[in-house]
Amino acid sequence: MYTLAQLAELVGGQLEGDPAQPVLGAASVDEAGPEHITFASNGKALAKARAGRAGCVIIPQDAAGIGRPVIRVANPRLAFAKVLEAFAPEPGAPEGVHETAVIGSDVEIGEGTAVGAYAVIGSGTRLGRGVIVYPGVYIGRDVEIGDDTVIYPRAVIMDRVRVGRRVVIQPGAVLGSDGFGFVPEGGRHVRVPHIGTVVVEDDAEIGVHTAVARATVGVTRIGRGTKLDGHVYVAHNVQLGENVIIAGMSGLAGSARVEDGVTLAGQTGVAGHFTVGAGTVVAARGFVASDVAPGSLVSGFPARPHAENMRILAAERRLPELLKAVDRLEQRVTELESRMLAAGAEAP
Amino acid sequence: MYTLAQLAELVGGQLEGDPAQPVLGAASVDEAGPEHITFASNGKALAKARAGRAGCVIIPQDAAGIGRPVIRVANPRLAFAKVLEAFAPEPGAPEGVHETAVIGSDVEIGEGTAVGAYAVIGSGTRLGRGVIVYPGVYIGRDVEIGDDTVIYPRAVIMDRVRVGRRVVIQPGAVLGSDGFGFVPEGGRHVRVPHIGTVVVEDDAEIGVHTAVARATVGVTRIGRGTKLDGHVYVAHNVQLGENVIIAGMSGLAGSARVEDGVTLAGQTGVAGHFTVGAGTVVAARGFVASDVAPGSLVSGFPARPHAENMRILAAERRLPELLKAVDRLEQRVTELESRMLAAGAEAP
Amino acid sequence: MYTLAQLAELVGGQLEGDPAQPVLGAASVDEAGPEHITFASNGKALAKARAGRAGCVIIPQDAAGIGRPVIRVANPRLAFAKVLEAFAPEPGAPEGVHETAVIGSDVEIGEGTAVGAYAVIGSGTRLGRGVIVYPGVYIGRDVEIGDDTVIYPRAVIMDRVRVGRRVVIQPGAVLGSDGFGFVPEGGRHVRVPHIGTVVVEDDAEIGVHTAVARATVGVTRIGRGTKLDGHVYVAHNVQLGENVIIAGMSGLAGSARVEDGVTLAGQTGVAGHFTVGAGTVVAARGFVASDVAPGSLVSGFPARPHAENMRILAAERRLPELLKAVDRLEQRVTELESRMLAAGAEAP
Repeated sequence: MYTLAQLAELVGGQLEGDPAQPVLGAASVDEAGPEHITFASNGKALAKARAGRAGCVIIPQDAAGIGRPVIRVANPRLAFAKVLEAFAPEPGAPEGVHETAVIGSDVEIGEGTAVGAYAVIGSGTRLGRGVIVYPGVYIGRDVEIGDDTVIYPRAVIMDRVRVGRRVVIQPGAVLGSDGFGFVPEGGRHVRVPHIGTVVVEDDAEIGVHTAVARATVGVTRIGRGTKLDGHVYVAHNVQLGENVIIAGMSGLAGSARVEDGVTLAGQTGVAGHFTVGAGTVVAARGFVASDVAPGSLVSGFPARPHAENMRILAAERRLPELLKAVDRLEQRVTELESRMLAAGAEAP
Repeated sequence: MYTLAQLAELVGGQLEGDPAQPVLGAASVDEAGPEHITFASNGKALAKARAGRAGCVIIPQDAAGIGRPVIRVANPRLAFAKVLEAFAPEPGAPEGVHETAVIGSDVEIGEGTAVGAYAVIGSGTRLGRGVIVYPGVYIGRDVEIGDDTVIYPRAVIMDRVRVGRRVVIQPGAVLGSDGFGFVPEGGRHVRVPHIGTVVVEDDAEIGVHTAVARATVGVTRIGRGTKLDGHVYVAHNVQLGENVIIAGMSGLAGSARVEDGVTLAGQTGVAGHFTVGAGTVVAARGFVASDVAPGSLVSGFPARPHAENMRILAAERRLPELLKAVDRLEQRVTELESRMLAAGAEAP
Repeated sequence: MYTLAQLAELVGGQLEGDPAQPVLGAASVDEAGPEHITFASNGKALAKARAGRAGCVIIPQDAAGIGRPVIRVANPRLAFAKVLEAFAPEPGAPEGVHETAVIGSDVEIGEGTAVGAYAVIGSGTRLGRGVIVYPGVYIGRDVEIGDDTVIYPRAVIMDRVRVGRRVVIQPGAVLGSDGFGFVPEGGRHVRVPHIGTVVVEDDAEIGVHTAVARATVGVTRIGRGTKLDGHVYVAHNVQLGENVIIAGMSGLAGSARVEDGVTLAGQTGVAGHFTVGAGTVVAARGFVASDVAPGSLVSGFPARPHAENMRILAAERRLPELLKAVDRLEQRVTELESRMLAAGAEAP
């Protein structure tokens, strides 16, 4: 439980209301009751907040009052994230190194690092300080994990992978599976050994069931601050820049490059060896099959400028009627031609 | 081994054949031999059954005879499901609570519940009666699992998730991973804590590797009797109604709503915040990017009425020839115009 | 470390350079330094190799010299695969049977087979010789695993699945989850028990997080030498032939058939019960919704001959302008018609 005064201080906002009012939890603007705090960052949400029952609403600095207690901040969404953190229940995280953890030789475990039950850590691996390794995690040999990284249950990190600081690895994620490369030889497919590795830089996030394959040689790289949602597959030798966002069920084929600040929406794809320029947004289901210039907004299959794709999609809907229109035109032109012929024949 | 009499009684059907005839197993209509029972529910399958070698065939009440032993029932497919259950081999399921299971404090384990080797169960969690927890399952703290639910190996259920009765959770499924939400701040992406949870109601099924993310606040809900195939990703705050069917590799973005009785075919997608009305069918690969009225049949990208989409796809195939037809028309019109002009010039 | 002479012998090639020159590792043609060996199999790569700094380059028999040490071979890519194997670091693989492995009754474990920590193996299961079972793997009852197969961490193999020799199963893969089949009954969905199994033949590969569902009755089959990339989902009763290649995030619906030597590129789909003929290639994102003749190259949704699909995609881009062109044509024809009418009216 917090008071409004405490929450206003937490988010650095200006309170308009009773500083002593208690708040028992956070809720969405649709579901918040008198015991909750919520937020509203645009006109639609502000109207809902005004009509709703929330005990307090975090709103933009310059918004009009809504007839109930508010906390004014520059970025309500960011402030609400801090509030959510304050109300987050204690996680069932491991503490200390569990007696059942199987730890190889020459393993370094930093101060305050926890290793859960039935975790397995290979020889030569180094875990930084404050790392949380949930139960059942597998970490191979010669792996490096940076300070304050959290690895959720059943994640797998294969040999020699390097993970930075404050990285979050969701349940079931896999780093360093073999890349998918074969050489055809007489109708059979001979495996190309993948002896490279994976590097995940500081502050990245690897989503549930997301997999990052190791490089043939060199590294597959997930840049600093880059966030991968669940069910994403990053193939061998892909290079992801910094602060990239990749939504769920997207795939990047071998050696694709994605520059800083790119957003790939859900169920997108990037074909092998192409580059998506910095700051580009690929809309949902978009499939990149050529290099994309920085700062682009693209969509469709193959991905093309979004405005063009929207025009094409709109035109497609008119296609059946267009076929008929052209048929009718052909008949009218044929009719004109025969009349013209007849007129010519009749001419003196 | 069963006799035909026993199987007829099991499915509540009328036997036409020798009650004492032994049946050693079930098989598809294509593969069934004299020792097998199979089923045929339509004309094509009945013809195969007639031509085949099956020892017995489950057929509709009113079907013509097929020259071999039959059991007549109202719903052959449903009857065959019962037969398959009868012939199902004993699974290698755990029994009792394995000595290596790590069980937190204040955990309740119902009568007849089994917990396999190396399973980990967090504090405050309650397992109902007759629950089967396979080896290596991770269950966090304060989780509730209803009676007779089966959780296959390596599934992960994070803190505070609530699972109903008779739910089936296939291997590798994850319930309660963090939702994918970030607030941009100065080029970086700040995580929004997801402090809500996941509720899976009675008789639901969660497929292999399927993941359901926890809500930001509130719950991500999988309704009663709803069946998710494998490799499905359900994002934070999605609301799935009752008896929904979602086939493999489909994705639902944040806060999407799917009402009762909807079917989403394979590789489909629903964009965030949209509603798919009750009883709607979305065909394979369809991508819902707007609200869909109840009872619709939609397909395509973006999803639109299926008949319209079929017309568009058919028209697309004629598009290259259409371009040429329009070119030819333009030439003919130009020719007509010049002749008309000439005729006009010639006119007195 | 190897000498050039040793590597030339390893790949069976002709060395042009100092046999005693040391090579410390392998690298891509872009990144190779004087201590590395690389390969170049086409003109573009050969130009890069000439301009680069590699200590040695594996090139085709008949290529021109590139001004640095080379090893000439028939197939540079295949030779490089052998070199990568030579330079592959020792994996952190388990040795022997770990004391924490839980092994059921009547389990056979072949000579030289290793079972890692916290692996669980069900009763009646047989592991061949030289099998490597990484930590945390779950293998059910009555499973067969052939000689020299490698099963990476956290993979799950359910009851009665049969896996051949020299198969590679990447982390998190699941074989033998239940197929997704239900019978509607009064608005509810009744599970069809899946009592068949999965067969994975010799030399196959199952990618990271890839799942293969067991058959309703009979088997779901992965043919000899067939390679599945990561995040692939193979539904119940699918039949994959030999030496098939399926790239990441592809899905095959129930009872689909894929004949020998087919390649499915990334994010493809095959609808249920259809057959993809031998040697066919389905391009990325293609969705097969009908039988495909052997030796085809198809793409698009629905998949059609690739050349036709390319013409359609090209024509789509011209669709918005086509709509305008037809509008203009209609106006011109209407103008012609009214002039023709006027001319006719003026005629005596």
